[in-house]
Amino acid sequence: MAEEVILLDFWCSPYGARVRIALAEKGVKYEYREEDLDDKSSLLLEMNPVYKMIPVLIHNGRPVCESLIAVEYIDEVWRGQFPLLPSDPYERAKAKFWGDFIEKKVHEPGKKTWKKKGAEQEEAKKEFIESLKLLEGELGDKPFFGGDTLGFVDIALIPFYTWFYSYEICGHFSIEAECPKFAAWAKRCMQKESVSKSLPDRQKVYGYVLELKKILGIE
Amino acid sequence: MAEEVILLDFWCSPYGARVRIALAEKGVKYEYREEDLDDKSSLLLEMNPVYKMIPVLIHNGRPVCESLIAVEYIDEVWRGQFPLLPSDPYERAKAKFWGDFIEKKVHEPGKKTWKKKGAEQEEAKKEFIESLKLLEGELGDKPFFGGDTLGFVDIALIPFYTWFYSYEICGHFSIEAECPKFAAWAKRCMQKESVSKSLPDRQKVYGYVLELKKILGIE
Repeated sequence: MAEEVILLDFWCSPYGARVRIALAEKGVKYEYREEDLDDKSSLLLEMNPVYKMIPVLIHNGRPVCESLIAVEYIDEVWRGQFPLLPSDPYERAKAKFWGDFIEKKVHEPGKKTWKKKGAEQEEAKKEFIESLKLLEGELGDKPFFGGDTLGFVDIALIPFYTWFYSYEICGHFSIEAECPKFAAWAKRCMQKESVSKSLPDRQKVYGYVLELKKILGIE
Repeated sequence: MAEEVILLDFWCSPYGARVRIALAEKGVKYEYREEDLDDKSSLLLEMNPVYKMIPVLIHNGRPVCESLIAVEYIDEVWRGQFPLLPSDPYERAKAKFWGDFIEKKVHEPGKKTWKKKGAEQEEAKKEFIESLKLLEGELGDKPFFGGDTLGFVDIALIPFYTWFYSYEICGHFSIEAECPKFAAWAKRCMQKESVSKSLPDRQKVYGYVLELKKILGIE
């Protein structure tokens, strides 16, 4: 059967980047469609009527919403030599636990490092660094969370990396100084073409953050 | 191998109830250990060092945290005649989407129907009812979200049912009047022993809500 794969996405979305990396790892060809978030396409509204948000992976006309669910779907549909999730149920559960942790404990405080000021910003920085340290503990001495190869947790986490430059400038701190092991892991990921080609330039992301700050009225 | 299954739980936790129902559906014998949330056991702190929260499923000494991840784990380990998730990747992704939706859009506004007052409470009631209506749409004419049998989405949602009585009294509204199809589904679930024996009495939950309101200083 001819596969039709379309990705509704937005260039600097870390959620979209997860799906892009997973598709690249599996070697799946797809049509990328950039969404205008201020004027969403009727296809997006039809394919994700609940949240009306990107990314949406459309596979043979059927939508898969929510980035980590889409990554898992990709892993299940395009089985082969590059599994993203372990086959052992316990290891799978652990990978999903950390994927969920990144959702709750990396992105949320991360956002506040550029959106907030004063005590709230300090609190967010503390929580964010604590989360990265927990992740460093989970990484241990492995090159990737997935072991010797990129896996589900790596794909869940690495897309935030190009946003971290903005967090650091706005929040006046250095992630590499606080979490050197994390920084080394991120650089290892960035050496993979599936990752580097799926992520936007960090300077361009910073430009976008500055625009957002202006729109939101944050000095 | 002799299986050792322990569940660290709290009697009225809807999250804990998900794991209880999944274990009951699979016919897995386990040791239930009630946690004192004001004085958590050292086992809980050791088994869930990240969140220090129940439920934790401990299978042969290894912890699985986060209720929906635990339900999926149970489904994968105790395969057999009662699958909780569909085998088709697309249907699996859909079930996980609705599981995640319940997490974000049923529990959160639901809580506010008893924790908030005035405009905030009205907003929460509206969002809560809208969520149930979306779920009614997904249920369609099937007896259960899982089709003819209880599945992952049913298990994710039904534990909140015994809390709904408290939402209704505190929020002055009737879920059955607003969402009759949802109410009929819930009654169907409650006829199953795996569900009814895993859920606390709604009057007892209401008593607990009243206690919480007193502690939190909500009139």
